[in-house]
Amino acid sequence: MKDASVKIQVGNPSKDRIILGIDPGTNVMGYGIIHVLNGKPKYLCMGVLKLSKYGDHYLRLRKIFERTRGLIDEFLPDELAIEAPFFGKNVQSMLKLGHAQGCAIAAALSRDIPIHEYAPLKIKMSITGNGRASKEQVAGMISRLLKVPESDLLPQLDATDGLAAAYCHYLETSKPIMSVSACKSWKDYVQKNPDKCH
Amino acid sequence: MKDASVKIQVGNPSKDRIILGIDPGTNVMGYGIIHVLNGKPKYLCMGVLKLSKYGDHYLRLRKIFERTRGLIDEFLPDELAIEAPFFGKNVQSMLKLGHAQGCAIAAALSRDIPIHEYAPLKIKMSITGNGRASKEQVAGMISRLLKVPESDLLPQLDATDGLAAAYCHYLETSKPIMSVSACKSWKDYVQKNPDKCH
Repeated sequence: MKDASVKIQVGNPSKDRIILGIDPGTNVMGYGIIHVLNGKPKYLCMGVLKLSKYGDHYLRLRKIFERTRGLIDEFLPDELAIEAPFFGKNVQSMLKLGHAQGCAIAAALSRDIPIHEYAPLKIKMSITGNGRASKEQVAGMISRLLKVPESDLLPQLDATDGLAAAYCHYLETSKPIMSVSACKSWKDYVQKNPDKCH
Repeated sequence: MKDASVKIQVGNPSKDRIILGIDPGTNVMGYGIIHVLNGKPKYLCMGVLKLSKYGDHYLRLRKIFERTRGLIDEFLPDELAIEAPFFGKNVQSMLKLGHAQGCAIAAALSRDIPIHEYAPLKIKMSITGNGRASKEQVAGMISRLLKVPESDLLPQLDATDGLAAAYCHYLETSKPIMSVSACKSWKDYVQKNPDKCH
């Protein structure tokens, strides 16, 4: 279990933070955690919660709530990124998916964790540059970006989806380094990039 | 606040129990609580949580989770009855409604309360005998059944929806008293209705 004091040492929340990514479905919930240290993302862990073995809808929801809260209590994330589709087969399946997402959201709310939703297309776009990329393409890119062997990602593509949600949130919220060409002068560059000075 | 020891004194859960009824929406959440004592339902309380004043979707979800858990901790219900429509304007609104329901469900799951969903048509049918009854007709019937003045119900029809969900669950789960005509003999009647003997 991660020591709670680590969070206290963290200076700039935008530079040092832990992001929990979740893809909650009614049959399977994938999750991945990254640690952004000095502005650079590092892989922490990922996993899958298989729900199809539980017949009861409420038992599945309970497992989602408990696992999400368990992950929060163990890894103390600063933010939750959740994969949330904006369309579905029918309203009935969307209501059930809404229940699953709602339970993961409630777990984060009960621990005061800010929540960010991303559509699957947005996640794929952020990571691969193509909103219609396959799960394997996303896994290949995540493998290179987070230095996780592709052989670890491909057998559990649902977990990769969770990891991808976390990585997408990192990309969306990281301030790009101000390039020299975007600055009027060296003085301007130094002002805009104080962390680049020694 | 209700004393926790009351729950321990309760003998037969099907006869003495507290039912929390909830109608969670994204703009308003209505709730009502009934106490089934010796098999007879009594009105305990009802209320409305107005959510439209909160702009942020997650703040609304948080309020739903916290109020539901607050009601559970105060009134110690044995069951949660939830009004859950099976259709909607579009998949997007159903996903948001699913979040709202999911948060109320998560609150009950986190306190080990069994959950029962009822479609609005089912609730209206159970209470008025007409699945297409108006909210006012449902309020009129609830007023007579639970002896709550109609003037208390009509100004807060959303709360009445919560109360109606609780009452519907009471009706659906109460064993009807075995009538004399349904028994072969007095001996049979006494066997089937042991609580009627002094």
